[in-house]
Amino acid sequence: MTANPATPLLDNVGTPDELRKLDPAQLRQLADELRAEMISAVGQTGGHLGSGLGVVELTVAIHYVFNTPDDRLIWDVGHQAYPHKILTGRRDRIRTIRQGGGLSGFTKRSESEYDPFGTAHSSTSISAALGFAVANKLAGTPGRGIAVIGDGAMSAGMAYEAMNNAKQAGNRLVVILNDNDMSIAPPVGGLSAYLARLVSSQPFLKVRDIARRISRKLPEPLHKAARKTDEFTRGWLTGGTLFEELGMYYVGPIDGHNLEQLVPILENVRDAAEGPCLIHVVTQKGKGYGPAEAASDKYHGVQKFDVITGEQVKSASGPPSYTGVFANALLAEATRDSTICAITAAMPSGTGLDKFETAFPERYFDVGIAEQHAVTFAAGLAAQGMRPFAAIYSTFLQRAYDQVVHDVAIQNLPVRFAIDRAGLVGADGATHAGSFDITYLATLPNFVVMAAADEAELVHMTHTAALYDDGPIAFRYPRGNGVGVPLPEIPQRLEIGKGRIVRHGTKIALLSLGTRLAESLKAADQLEAKGLSTTVADLRFAKPLDEELIRKLMATHEVVVTVEEGSIGGLGAHVLTMASDEGITDSGLKIRTLRLPDVFQDHDSPEKQYDAAGLNAPHIVETVLKALRWNDAGVGEVRA
Amino acid sequence: MTANPATPLLDNVGTPDELRKLDPAQLRQLADELRAEMISAVGQTGGHLGSGLGVVELTVAIHYVFNTPDDRLIWDVGHQAYPHKILTGRRDRIRTIRQGGGLSGFTKRSESEYDPFGTAHSSTSISAALGFAVANKLAGTPGRGIAVIGDGAMSAGMAYEAMNNAKQAGNRLVVILNDNDMSIAPPVGGLSAYLARLVSSQPFLKVRDIARRISRKLPEPLHKAARKTDEFTRGWLTGGTLFEELGMYYVGPIDGHNLEQLVPILENVRDAAEGPCLIHVVTQKGKGYGPAEAASDKYHGVQKFDVITGEQVKSASGPPSYTGVFANALLAEATRDSTICAITAAMPSGTGLDKFETAFPERYFDVGIAEQHAVTFAAGLAAQGMRPFAAIYSTFLQRAYDQVVHDVAIQNLPVRFAIDRAGLVGADGATHAGSFDITYLATLPNFVVMAAADEAELVHMTHTAALYDDGPIAFRYPRGNGVGVPLPEIPQRLEIGKGRIVRHGTKIALLSLGTRLAESLKAADQLEAKGLSTTVADLRFAKPLDEELIRKLMATHEVVVTVEEGSIGGLGAHVLTMASDEGITDSGLKIRTLRLPDVFQDHDSPEKQYDAAGLNAPHIVETVLKALRWNDAGVGEVRA
Repeated sequence: MTANPATPLLDNVGTPDELRKLDPAQLRQLADELRAEMISAVGQTGGHLGSGLGVVELTVAIHYVFNTPDDRLIWDVGHQAYPHKILTGRRDRIRTIRQGGGLSGFTKRSESEYDPFGTAHSSTSISAALGFAVANKLAGTPGRGIAVIGDGAMSAGMAYEAMNNAKQAGNRLVVILNDNDMSIAPPVGGLSAYLARLVSSQPFLKVRDIARRISRKLPEPLHKAARKTDEFTRGWLTGGTLFEELGMYYVGPIDGHNLEQLVPILENVRDAAEGPCLIHVVTQKGKGYGPAEAASDKYHGVQKFDVITGEQVKSASGPPSYTGVFANALLAEATRDSTICAITAAMPSGTGLDKFETAFPERYFDVGIAEQHAVTFAAGLAAQGMRPFAAIYSTFLQRAYDQVVHDVAIQNLPVRFAIDRAGLVGADGATHAGSFDITYLATLPNFVVMAAADEAELVHMTHTAALYDDGPIAFRYPRGNGVGVPLPEIPQRLEIGKGRIVRHGTKIALLSLGTRLAESLKAADQLEAKGLSTTVADLRFAKPLDEELIRKLMATHEVVVTVEEGSIGGLGAHVLTMASDEGITDSGLKIRTLRLPDVFQDHDSPEKQYDAAGLNAPHIVETVLKALRWNDAGVGEVRA
Repeated sequence: MTANPATPLLDNVGTPDELRKLDPAQLRQLADELRAEMISAVGQTGGHLGSGLGVVELTVAIHYVFNTPDDRLIWDVGHQAYPHKILTGRRDRIRTIRQGGGLSGFTKRSESEYDPFGTAHSSTSISAALGFAVANKLAGTPGRGIAVIGDGAMSAGMAYEAMNNAKQAGNRLVVILNDNDMSIAPPVGGLSAYLARLVSSQPFLKVRDIARRISRKLPEPLHKAARKTDEFTRGWLTGGTLFEELGMYYVGPIDGHNLEQLVPILENVRDAAEGPCLIHVVTQKGKGYGPAEAASDKYHGVQKFDVITGEQVKSASGPPSYTGVFANALLAEATRDSTICAITAAMPSGTGLDKFETAFPERYFDVGIAEQHAVTFAAGLAAQGMRPFAAIYSTFLQRAYDQVVHDVAIQNLPVRFAIDRAGLVGADGATHAGSFDITYLATLPNFVVMAAADEAELVHMTHTAALYDDGPIAFRYPRGNGVGVPLPEIPQRLEIGKGRIVRHGTKIALLSLGTRLAESLKAADQLEAKGLSTTVADLRFAKPLDEELIRKLMATHEVVVTVEEGSIGGLGAHVLTMASDEGITDSGLKIRTLRLPDVFQDHDSPEKQYDAAGLNAPHIVETVLKALRWNDAGVGEVRA
């Protein structure tokens, strides 16, 4: 651990108001101190580093030039907002980031008036900024909407939809395209190639060029002969930049680390823009910290590290991650079957598919931050006889829900969904939790929905999905490491809609789906110790339910408790619905459902999150005892 | 009713194979006959007319030039595919379109090998075509992916995401942009203005221009000096068309009704393209049928009509439509409260918001086919103190699910969701059914979810939503007309989470949510006639549940049945979960849940659909009797 850096200037700048009192000549020093402070802080806590380092100067310049918080500044994704947090009154808590009770790793409305809109998922910032800008325009109050969005985030359709509507905001909308040729991985697709051409084809914009650019009027009506100059024709009819074609003023490219260029250009846009502006700023992810600049992912997300050497604290070695187990299992399937394809939406390493890319580059598709396209593209592949796996985090699959319904489920196409980060996700918090997938998928006709109880099960489910051609099939698995069971040498093909009994008992039945199985087994031990003989089943399938097994267990046990890491409407609801449809509930059987609570849980350690959610062994035991109306001491059964 | 037109040439062309045997000089006549046949057919059945008329020549040309069905042709949205259906072996059934058991109003895989991908929701076609193209490329089999997509559909982010990935398909991807300056309503936004500039700035492309265009190589690597001609610089560096900037070859504009131009240009693309091509075709919606050309919506969707006069059969007058009631109610709120805004995603008349546009143009936002942007834009407006109503059909809100979760629910922002077309939708079929919204919304923390039982309730709910500032609130209502109750002069503000008892009884309790209330009341009459005293409650809220009311009814009745027009995981699941959480199910109370079945229901008359779904009065009665184990004659209770 190294000492905190000396930051004499920053020590006196706690808010943008104080920042705006500085002389422009002081900003360079402030930026340097801000960078040092950020490196020091993330060294102590871990977190997102590279993207924040890339926008240190931009953060200083925006707050210096614009009137935050009245000008609404929205950091797309928000993981680059650490310098912003330091400059907006949160420096004293920056070393609590991503820890329980501490600052969020993203922007968050409840944290600060300088965070007008929470971000975390990509590509929302322009739409939100437009909302702020238009609301102020309607109310006649001052205030722009300023979105800072990366080039990777620009590959999402949502950003395009927003740009297509930019004109509604007039000059109150400022979009700052932070082009670092990297989101988490290098971006893909036509837009990315286009931005590279834009940057490589012309020198950085000089301050003296800017005034002319932003006051060039939109060329409507077209018939005004005066405007038919050569320059105009090039810029607006045969095509200016893509952004101009969508109706925005384009300003750039600009060196995003040069404050002497950034500040006057932002001032010009602030004072002279006649319509929505897109400012194209070129930055370097990891800027100003040698080890980050040298790393291929620019230290996107890091563990705690030594500031001098850049060496990260290694996590204790343990069982392999679910992501890694899935990636290897899929590789094995793809080796066996040449129709298997893999699709990721800009998360090659997060989903483990980078391995697939290396082995089978032709069958690997990184489509950019474009979940909607990813799913319908997979549906097209499936309709032509391929066996596509779309590997998408639970929370991001929400981006493609209509495509899942309309293009996959209704047509009953065999697209395989590998749903990573299902359930609670620790430090990433509510925006990244995968809470709803069981509910929103199991309600769809034709869908098969599985959840892996451990890493061996994940191997079986990957294999089962690969062999299943009858319709859509999804399998979910959590963030983090497996439980340490041996991996199967030969994967099993699971029978669709069949669970398994893991432990036999007679009085209590725990119906587990997914990785809460371990806690269910622990709970069973504790119940057994109280003389309550307990069966534990791993249902494996939320849909179709193993009705035969459930019926049998309900007929032979006194209390049945479902356990799942998902929101209301999922497994528990399906089991209750089946029991009620069949009149089983009429018998007075005691059924309880344990699920995620009806709140968005803040970031915290996984253990504490499970505890808050009531999904650990003691909660399962308590639920059973309460159903039996045992007294606290558990001495005997008290029937009311 | 007029006689079917004489179609001597078309009579001998039942499939594309037969079409391709014609001489090019015969295509004009074929197109004319195809147009006449289509007008005649839709005159008899009603359906989508204008968009099909606009693509008659395009349909002929595509099938003539390309090798369908091996070349996979995907009509975006699919409601313009009537001429395609006539030419692909379905002419004998074209007069059954949109009727129970008849042809679908959209493309559908199960109907024909010439429909490789079902469409209905907008903007999916390029993604799907890419899937087909890439799958064929990987397999080494022939076959392109051909997407025909309207300019309105191009405003959706999904289309942009797909174009950003077009390069993956090489020259196997052909996108035909059908630019008629209309989707259902005139399109909005920057892209639309851009396309208009493209078309107005240059004459239609001549055949002799085409070969040069499509064989112009992509300018990579950039350093090849030979390519640095002026033309190249204009086209690729300072900007070609938007499509070229995304990496596609742009060909156009082309007159989409001129077969002598269309056919050779399509042939050129087929034979000489070196990469993914976008062909910009300009057509006129309603082309060739006077009454359609003259109508403002170009006869987008019509009732049966007289072919000579164009006069449509009027629907029997009756109670006002839910859409109209909502539109008027919102107008009243907006008159009272200047912070109320209205947002539609390209459905101004479908949602009734065209009235709002007229009255409050500044507070009205048509964002194009861009549900993702619509919802986050609304969230931004709400965060800045406006009271936005996002009026989106249930099925289309699926497009914005992540924005609903991430931008609205997590931040607990008071965005109002007016969810039209909730439940079954008759002739529009499975792709447009609003089956899942209760489930996918009620699972979200912070959300209030209401369903209107009749048109008076809809007025109350609109008012309640307008006054509710504590978080997101949604209210759903069905397609079609109200039940005929009087509309309130002064709307009530409903208490959040409180239902109402509509009829008092003692033995059976029916818990209805939404417009099945009428059937529930009918069922109650029938049960009463059998001596079963029946309470009927209108719960109004799926979330928060009126737990107090439900608890009370469960404590005092013998059978409780929930009734909703939604899929599993919705109201019934929430009621069962509550009852199980509280141990109410332990009592042996008979609870049943009636909901939509676990299938995608085909288009049919609403009555038949409800019958198939089991949501009419007789089904409710039967469910109660079965729960009581009454025998068929209903003579007495048989306790097992």
